[in-house]
Amino acid sequence: MAERERVVLKFGGTSVADLDRIRAVAKIVAHEADKGVGVVAVVSAMAGETNRLVALCSQAGDADPALDAHGYEYDTIVSSGEQVTAGLLALILQNSGRKARSWLGWQAPLVTDDAHGRAKIKRIDPGPIGAAIDGGEIAIVAGFQGIDEAGRISTLGRGGSDTTAAAFAAALDAARCDIYTDVDGVYTTDPRINRAAKKMSRIAYEEMLEMAALGAKVLQTRSVELAMAHSVKLRVLSSFGEIGAENPGTVICSEDSIVEKNVVSAVTLSRSEAKISLLSVPDHPGAAADIFTLLGDGGVNVDMIVQSPARSGDAANISFTMGEDDLTRAENALLESQSRIGFEKIISNSDVVKVSVIGVGMKSHTGVAATMFRTLADNAINIHNIATSEIKISVLIDSRYAELAVRALHTAYGLDAAA
Amino acid sequence: MAERERVVLKFGGTSVADLDRIRAVAKIVAHEADKGVGVVAVVSAMAGETNRLVALCSQAGDADPALDAHGYEYDTIVSSGEQVTAGLLALILQNSGRKARSWLGWQAPLVTDDAHGRAKIKRIDPGPIGAAIDGGEIAIVAGFQGIDEAGRISTLGRGGSDTTAAAFAAALDAARCDIYTDVDGVYTTDPRINRAAKKMSRIAYEEMLEMAALGAKVLQTRSVELAMAHSVKLRVLSSFGEIGAENPGTVICSEDSIVEKNVVSAVTLSRSEAKISLLSVPDHPGAAADIFTLLGDGGVNVDMIVQSPARSGDAANISFTMGEDDLTRAENALLESQSRIGFEKIISNSDVVKVSVIGVGMKSHTGVAATMFRTLADNAINIHNIATSEIKISVLIDSRYAELAVRALHTAYGLDAAA
Repeated sequence: MAERERVVLKFGGTSVADLDRIRAVAKIVAHEADKGVGVVAVVSAMAGETNRLVALCSQAGDADPALDAHGYEYDTIVSSGEQVTAGLLALILQNSGRKARSWLGWQAPLVTDDAHGRAKIKRIDPGPIGAAIDGGEIAIVAGFQGIDEAGRISTLGRGGSDTTAAAFAAALDAARCDIYTDVDGVYTTDPRINRAAKKMSRIAYEEMLEMAALGAKVLQTRSVELAMAHSVKLRVLSSFGEIGAENPGTVICSEDSIVEKNVVSAVTLSRSEAKISLLSVPDHPGAAADIFTLLGDGGVNVDMIVQSPARSGDAANISFTMGEDDLTRAENALLESQSRIGFEKIISNSDVVKVSVIGVGMKSHTGVAATMFRTLADNAINIHNIATSEIKISVLIDSRYAELAVRALHTAYGLDAAA
Repeated sequence: MAERERVVLKFGGTSVADLDRIRAVAKIVAHEADKGVGVVAVVSAMAGETNRLVALCSQAGDADPALDAHGYEYDTIVSSGEQVTAGLLALILQNSGRKARSWLGWQAPLVTDDAHGRAKIKRIDPGPIGAAIDGGEIAIVAGFQGIDEAGRISTLGRGGSDTTAAAFAAALDAARCDIYTDVDGVYTTDPRINRAAKKMSRIAYEEMLEMAALGAKVLQTRSVELAMAHSVKLRVLSSFGEIGAENPGTVICSEDSIVEKNVVSAVTLSRSEAKISLLSVPDHPGAAADIFTLLGDGGVNVDMIVQSPARSGDAANISFTMGEDDLTRAENALLESQSRIGFEKIISNSDVVKVSVIGVGMKSHTGVAATMFRTLADNAINIHNIATSEIKISVLIDSRYAELAVRALHTAYGLDAAA
């Protein structure tokens, strides 16, 4: 049992973009500490710094993958960004008369596997930092980084500071984990697309996971998974507001903690989608398996799959979607194997987007899909592909209808803010 | 006993200024490794990087000295510069098919005391890096940094990478320690002042120590002390030449290894000098002690001291020199205590320089001082103060005579290169 309540605060790159911003963050951290709770602040690199370091690594050249060494040095280099921010925030807090110190990944320690560049957390020793914050010292943790069992620096991959924060909140049994960012919470849809978007006061972990997977960039998926697994109360809020002002943000919590559930909580849009259709694939057992094994081996992450009978008797048309970045790779892999697979024609389309509606209330309500399809039909929007899960329905549509679809669905599910 | 011969190479900031320079350094390192020796390369931060990081620390503000915390975070921040260079050099070597890895101070480990920002090395564990290089892997060591007993990152102060290199050479029982820099060796005097300056093939540790203390910037004093204490053969040479070309540089070794000793080996010039004269100090016991205690407490490093009787009976004039940076501090300290010390007048002069002649041969030769004073007199150069040690004679003269004095002395002691 911790001696006193603990909170974890996380500040992303735009929140620590320069010394002025780091000073503003120091005020937020000090304000929390003044409430008498134990404070851990997890920081990202200053905006642009990680890109600069990654560019240096690329220019130095990729190491021979056979050596498996690229990741070690990449992590040693790139982790220095968070190291600098953590030291600066600690310095500024000390300067304002606070007890504070920086903790690098290897000092905490936060131990990871050795998948360098995208390492997974194995364990955190809560002892040293727990003792420090119980003793009234503010702990500034360099996000995104850890140490592998061999004593080399590791990193968790892009967005890893969210995961660092959630993991420390779990390890330290923190009352909550506040993710400070440049928006003031999670919205029912992207406010830049739809001015009727509303900030949500609460959202379930499962919904947030779907939102993160479906294009909302506010939180890293792994951090939400971790928080869900350990029942860490996450909160997304802005670091740009006035200190002490009302700043509730959006709480991400278990479905049970949400009293009034909407059937649909949010509408998301993912623009970086592409679609491939294979026409007249011979319809024998294992044909689809061949295709998707081929793509999987080529590192292509396939999403919505639709199979339908082709006009000619013993053949099928197969279409599927993937991230736009994977399109060329997928086309090349398929064309190389065209004779073996035996499809007649390949049609690619990257002028498509994925629109999704998400809500835990869907589980217990019928007619959600019907409302979606009717709304799109009413707006003359044609649906290419459909994918569903227990709490979301996604459709692939032409890019030009993206904003129209988002706005129409937002209205149809009663999400519009009062004008 | 090491399995095979080991060498330590050190590359300063200008030698690793950008990726092109680091690639050139990788070629030098690979060339050494190809000789079948175990190679440790110690690197500084890329030129300008340490200044950038130090500026960030200053802008973040000095922490309350009472917390003694400034050094901890300063070291965490500033050490990231060498961390990045070490990773990049290791990456580039891996890319060219070599086995290489970076070693940070805490990984080696290089353990220091906790005088952060100017830490002293307590010990180096030669085991891990020794095993790595015996196994044919090139060890890239981040210079300038270590770890204190509490597990915090420490730094050795400016120029600390020279010291890191000498310390690793001692710990690993290396055959030699090559200090690569932007000049091709140690000269009998600054070639920018005197075109007749000659590169020395050998110089004794003691001479190099005096040269470093007296204004030559080629090597950090502590690295020479360390090398001397552990009989490490140091060599200063250029990283900007052609790989494999004749590049002997200057060897710094014990006096015994130098067969043909010059009476005077080098002439140095230090411009950042200042002089204070106190007139009519009451000549009672302890007066001088009072003055220099006062200055020592104020952090002023006093050098050449001359005391002479004042015109009036029971008083003395006391003059002394110090670094130009300390002049204002010294003046203020003395003026505050003028009534207590009782001197009549204070005269300051920062328009002075220190010219020194250095040579281990002085120990066994007479007439060295006489030659110096006669040469200066022949050129109508007035001497303010004189200081001597077993192997050097320094004089303080007016700044305007600096170059004239250096050139005249260089000729007088037979050091001029054949035209």
